[in-house]
Amino acid sequence: MFSLTVCDHIMIAHSFRGEEFGPAQRLHGATYAVEAEFRAPKLDHLNLLIDIGLAKTELRRILDSVDYHNLDDLPALAGQNTTTEYMAFHIFNLLSQACRHGALGDGGRAVAQIKVLLRESPVAWAAFEGPIA
Amino acid sequence: MFSLTVCDHIMIAHSFRGEEFGPAQRLHGATYAVEAEFRAPKLDHLNLLIDIGLAKTELRRILDSVDYHNLDDLPALAGQNTTTEYMAFHIFNLLSQACRHGALGDGGRAVAQIKVLLRESPVAWAAFEGPIA
Amino acid sequence: MFSLTVCDHIMIAHSFRGEEFGPAQRLHGATYAVEAEFRAPKLDHLNLLIDIGLAKTELRRILDSVDYHNLDDLPALAGQNTTTEYMAFHIFNLLSQACRHGALGDGGRAVAQIKVLLRESPVAWAAFEGPIA
Amino acid sequence: MFSLTVCDHIMIAHSFRGEEFGPAQRLHGATYAVEAEFRAPKLDHLNLLIDIGLAKTELRRILDSVDYHNLDDLPALAGQNTTTEYMAFHIFNLLSQACRHGALGDGGRAVAQIKVLLRESPVAWAAFEGPIA
Amino acid sequence: MFSLTVCDHIMIAHSFRGEEFGPAQRLHGATYAVEAEFRAPKLDHLNLLIDIGLAKTELRRILDSVDYHNLDDLPALAGQNTTTEYMAFHIFNLLSQACRHGALGDGGRAVAQIKVLLRESPVAWAAFEGPIA
Amino acid sequence: MFSLTVCDHIMIAHSFRGEEFGPAQRLHGATYAVEAEFRAPKLDHLNLLIDIGLAKTELRRILDSVDYHNLDDLPALAGQNTTTEYMAFHIFNLLSQACRHGALGDGGRAVAQIKVLLRESPVAWAAFEGPIA
Repeated sequence: MFSLTVCDHIMIAHSFRGEEFGPAQRLHGATYAVEAEFRAPKLDHLNLLIDIGLAKTELRRILDSVDYHNLDDLPALAGQNTTTEYMAFHIFNLLSQACRHGALGDGGRAVAQIKVLLRESPVAWAAFEGPIA
Repeated sequence: MFSLTVCDHIMIAHSFRGEEFGPAQRLHGATYAVEAEFRAPKLDHLNLLIDIGLAKTELRRILDSVDYHNLDDLPALAGQNTTTEYMAFHIFNLLSQACRHGALGDGGRAVAQIKVLLRESPVAWAAFEGPIA
Repeated sequence: MFSLTVCDHIMIAHSFRGEEFGPAQRLHGATYAVEAEFRAPKLDHLNLLIDIGLAKTELRRILDSVDYHNLDDLPALAGQNTTTEYMAFHIFNLLSQACRHGALGDGGRAVAQIKVLLRESPVAWAAFEGPIA
Repeated sequence: MFSLTVCDHIMIAHSFRGEEFGPAQRLHGATYAVEAEFRAPKLDHLNLLIDIGLAKTELRRILDSVDYHNLDDLPALAGQNTTTEYMAFHIFNLLSQACRHGALGDGGRAVAQIKVLLRESPVAWAAFEGPIA
Repeated sequence: MFSLTVCDHIMIAHSFRGEEFGPAQRLHGATYAVEAEFRAPKLDHLNLLIDIGLAKTELRRILDSVDYHNLDDLPALAGQNTTTEYMAFHIFNLLSQACRHGALGDGGRAVAQIKVLLRESPVAWAAFEGPIA
Repeated sequence: MFSLTVCDHIMIAHSFRGEEFGPAQRLHGATYAVEAEFRAPKLDHLNLLIDIGLAKTELRRILDSVDYHNLDDLPALAGQNTTTEYMAFHIFNLLSQACRHGALGDGGRAVAQIKVLLRESPVAWAAFEGPIA
């Protein structure tokens, strides 16, 4: 299996519901360093898994929907605790759609799996990975 | 599959038996940067894979059993060459037990797989991953 | 000159005043990875610059005053744009006071300079360094 | 599953054929930080997955065939666009051969899978992983 | 002293003249991860050292003059061995000019010193730092 | 001022004298990632600060005197608490001598300052820097 990973980051505010969260129930924030990994069993005739320029552009477009926002206020995330693991899943879904709908070109249509990993601090990160539905 | 990773580190002394180890047969030591990755197919009602506070506390409790020790002197490791790959397996087993016995809460009981990765230097690391037995 | 650096991190929300900030005028957040560097011209009789345990504890105590908060709401930061460079200066001042007042022991009293560096993302960071006033 | 990873790096020049590559059609270069991960279901009697010294030596020998070269001029890569994903596959193949042919000792013969990951910049990397054929 | 650092990277080809360079006399290449650090004794009325957006844009504009090129062919570098330390100096000069000429705004005119650091591999880097002439 | 930095690492065992050290009074160990920074006001006719090959070789030769050892047993360190800050100073002295005695060539003789930084864990490091005596 081949994989290609591109990185970017977002800076968001949010708060959590649930006593389990302790001080994280207060409005606080995070820089999420985002790693988007695309996997496919073969390369195209140019030896590319995916057009890296398209991948970066599309990841940025998706991240713009949450970057520099208070996640508590976003309709797309209403009713959700925006934990790191959930946000990885949220971005996974948007990237999967982008692949299916052709936003990442022919290479994107051939992507079999995606993994989205979000680093919230130097000592903690979360990810979601799965096949493109 | 979701995953959540927490990190910590230990500073240990040890020596190896076997000519294959060359100068590492002498008593020396290592900082192991430890990454404990918990995997589960779904999140709980709070969108958590596991309580990250419990995970850090339990990882620390487990690491305290080897941290700042000469591994050659520990009964729990008697007769073993404490290679990086073996130590990853050793910590994997202790974390698996902790999950099964409820030390990581309900989230811990729902963990399907664990990966423990130990970085011994900037250019070498080892890991063990597997289902919770 | 000797130096000793200890690290920690905080997760905060804030917003900026001023059109120059563009989308960062909205409420958003950041993980600041904090590096506190203590400098002194010599070591003590134990070959220590400073008690690293005290340094970590005191840095954590200082960071607790801003960690998991919306900086826009904190009286200690009222009227300030809490840019990364300003927050480095703010933490520098609190660490300097701690050294002068003995919270870091005799080693802390012998510290000549402090540098506080805050990483806001993988591609941007800011710092303040200076003599202990 | 156990894994052991060793790292090295190469500095190469190359150019790409295909309009999709934009400015990368010009002769340019890259530092590839190379991570070679060896996986096996069990350890040997010394608790080793593989002799790490042999692994480093063999990885270096393989990398010497491309290090400090213009990849456009190498017969072994003739007719190929030497993308990061392709170079990961190329090095994977050479490492697989080395394992099969005994260059990594008995441990190498027991390796089940290899993953080769090449970091081309702080924000992009590619990999190939698979069973040893 | 305050400082603000922004990062970017370039991918270049080049070769060196001089037997001291051994295999690096051949045409090869490098990814240079570039860290541009701006230093000033005080912040402006918005608590900014420099407009980080302008800094990133100007650094990118400067790097575009060498990115994806064979440095051996660039008139601006004719007759120079483009070692990492020399390239740090070259970029330092261009950033200094940009500050003096107002490309980084009023904040840029108040910058006292610049440090440019280029990482050529995980285990080697070079830098040039000095006052703005 | 120019600088060039090369990196390596050592894996050592040691123990500390003094109640201040708590559990670190026990025999334990550390991986020290070593960064050796050479500074000089100008480059030679090849645009080199120092021959990077000589620098790596000499750093390795110096590190071999402590690598894979129990520092408590080494005559060169007798009577010293081998703290990270002290070990940085110890390696600084050996590198300074090497520069003065010509082991790093003409470039080494022109080095004005050296900084040696030792990372003992992902969250703590120490350094010594000074002019070559």
